[in-house]
Amino acid sequence: MTETKLISTLNKENLPHLDKTYVPSRLLLGPGPSNANPEVLKALALNPIGHLDEAYIELMSEVQKLLRYTWQCNNRITLPMSGTGSAAMEASIANFIEPGEKILIAKKGYFGDRLVDMASRYNADVSVIEKEWGEAFTFEEIKYEIETKKPVIFAIVHAETSTGVLQPLEGIGDLCRKNNCLFLVDAVTSLGALELFIDDWKIDLAYSCSQKGLSCPPGLSPFTMNKRAEDKLSARTSKVPNWYLDLSLLNRYWGSDRVYHHTAPVNMNFAIREGLRLIANEGLENIWRRHNSNAIKLWKGLESLGMDLHVSSEFRLPTLTTVKIPPAVDGDAYRNHLLKNFGIEIGNGLGALSGKVWRIGLMGFNSNEENVDRLLNLFDTELKKFSIFDSSSF
Amino acid sequence: MTETKLISTLNKENLPHLDKTYVPSRLLLGPGPSNANPEVLKALALNPIGHLDEAYIELMSEVQKLLRYTWQCNNRITLPMSGTGSAAMEASIANFIEPGEKILIAKKGYFGDRLVDMASRYNADVSVIEKEWGEAFTFEEIKYEIETKKPVIFAIVHAETSTGVLQPLEGIGDLCRKNNCLFLVDAVTSLGALELFIDDWKIDLAYSCSQKGLSCPPGLSPFTMNKRAEDKLSARTSKVPNWYLDLSLLNRYWGSDRVYHHTAPVNMNFAIREGLRLIANEGLENIWRRHNSNAIKLWKGLESLGMDLHVSSEFRLPTLTTVKIPPAVDGDAYRNHLLKNFGIEIGNGLGALSGKVWRIGLMGFNSNEENVDRLLNLFDTELKKFSIFDSSSF
Repeated sequence: MTETKLISTLNKENLPHLDKTYVPSRLLLGPGPSNANPEVLKALALNPIGHLDEAYIELMSEVQKLLRYTWQCNNRITLPMSGTGSAAMEASIANFIEPGEKILIAKKGYFGDRLVDMASRYNADVSVIEKEWGEAFTFEEIKYEIETKKPVIFAIVHAETSTGVLQPLEGIGDLCRKNNCLFLVDAVTSLGALELFIDDWKIDLAYSCSQKGLSCPPGLSPFTMNKRAEDKLSARTSKVPNWYLDLSLLNRYWGSDRVYHHTAPVNMNFAIREGLRLIANEGLENIWRRHNSNAIKLWKGLESLGMDLHVSSEFRLPTLTTVKIPPAVDGDAYRNHLLKNFGIEIGNGLGALSGKVWRIGLMGFNSNEENVDRLLNLFDTELKKFSIFDSSSF
Repeated sequence: MTETKLISTLNKENLPHLDKTYVPSRLLLGPGPSNANPEVLKALALNPIGHLDEAYIELMSEVQKLLRYTWQCNNRITLPMSGTGSAAMEASIANFIEPGEKILIAKKGYFGDRLVDMASRYNADVSVIEKEWGEAFTFEEIKYEIETKKPVIFAIVHAETSTGVLQPLEGIGDLCRKNNCLFLVDAVTSLGALELFIDDWKIDLAYSCSQKGLSCPPGLSPFTMNKRAEDKLSARTSKVPNWYLDLSLLNRYWGSDRVYHHTAPVNMNFAIREGLRLIANEGLENIWRRHNSNAIKLWKGLESLGMDLHVSSEFRLPTLTTVKIPPAVDGDAYRNHLLKNFGIEIGNGLGALSGKVWRIGLMGFNSNEENVDRLLNLFDTELKKFSIFDSSSF
């Protein structure tokens, strides 16, 4: 310990204890994270146990079983990955694309772009079909592209958090099977909130996150894959070029072998087990109904205040609403006003929609009538203060 | 909602609430995770805020500053990655190796093997020098290999959790600079516990974990890189073949730009902020002294009970002790006995040392005299019950 005297104190800041006075209380009605259920936060704070402890192994099985219910599937390989949603998104590419293989990505928002970026890093032959930000693809458009391009994977975002569009998925699974192609679905903003049937819709690969429909903090990304995807993985001629997200290694830990891969984020798994328990407790039918009815209430309320919604009613996403910022309003100033003076977070538009729409999330624990009423009331009383020249325009 | 009636209840398990009666209370004296500090667990359970919230951005800066203190460095790019330790290990390979570039890995345990596996996935030209599991490399051995092999990266594990060896690092930094090579150090089991000077020792790249010296639950992996490593990253001719761990993207979020990359694991960052605050509060000089003295107490105690330590005193790792399982004892049965009847977890040997040693961890919050006394007392009274034929042999 002769060098102890050389310890630099340059960055040794003396900070206060982190508590509720230091972390502000927020109602998170943006694109996510959403507020966690208080029961989930209690579970999160339990003392960690070993990642190979029998009690933890049992909890892993519970998480997997409840994930299967929430995904509505019976896939053997169903697990939460140890990273936020983008980690499982990347796993869905890294494990199933070999260099030069064709992936067709249906891009209609920011997260389609992310899939394109990831696929290109794994040397996929990337084909893209595009839609305006705020529209959905028709079945016929997808059919034409799959039949023409013959990809090995077709990827689409179910619920586009950047645009507020809900993409209909029925029929695409059959189409993919006929064309010998895996059907990959981004369910980041739909799992545990909106109608989603992995098995019935013949979805081969899907991923999501913990901080939206599951009412947990961000940090885990649920993933599921069926036998068709397993076969594609087994047929690889090269090692998966990503160790942390290698599904064959992950499945040796989450499967019956229980072979150590990486040290699991134990407490986040306590949290997701609790979030999933609450979902099973309420029942998917009730959860889906709740998210739909609260969204409709929000949409009607905003429209009755004279505001325009960005997405046509047919494709509107119940978990995330894009509402147009009235031309006379400084969108950022209004968002900051809600955050600073009322503790409510709503989101700015992302990418092409930045400054054009606000994004309002009603997800998981936060999808309730009280939150809708509170927000509509604030739009009614506060928004007029932010018009640059005239408050009669909305 | 016409399909609601089809919801399968096959996996809809009715589980009890997750609480202290369901998750057993454990004293984690194995290779990690270690117990989290109760203050850390309180911070972990705070309600999440947005990952672009001003209050969160400020917390990110605090985490970075306190990490710089704990690493003893002034590196601009110093951040916790959103995954467990292996994620940052992989980032250290993925960002800095281009296909065909030579990496020299000094392998003396399980985690050296992991580095080899990762490097090969990124198409590195992998050279390996090996030592028996339980030994350390000499400076001369490393010097000879670096001068002969001329790698672009030299990688070594500071504290090998699989063997209990502490590798001396002094002088290697200068050697690497002379040979135009980056010096990469795995500090998973040393950061926040043992003497470590990133700047003074001229370490270019280093990574660690949250669940050992930092007294947090597993889930984040602190990482730091200096200007030499930045230059290597900037000189890349190809995109980093890993999106989630791409340091140029990560640094746009953690750096002054604050550009959204992935949704941060907000609550885990609350936890690490608190873990790091407690470290600054105690002071590294006191923390390093505490870990050393408790380890020495454990070593003396085990030897006075007639037990053999696997590593010679010169290279013994204070955070993780490998103690030989006496020949007459069923190692697994004894470990299970401690876990089931006393709530204490110690680890089995990993890989080549499985069944040959137990691994005893004294890390972060758990490195205290009371824990040492408790464990030594149990070794004194309980171990003799597990001798297969004779209790006088130890």
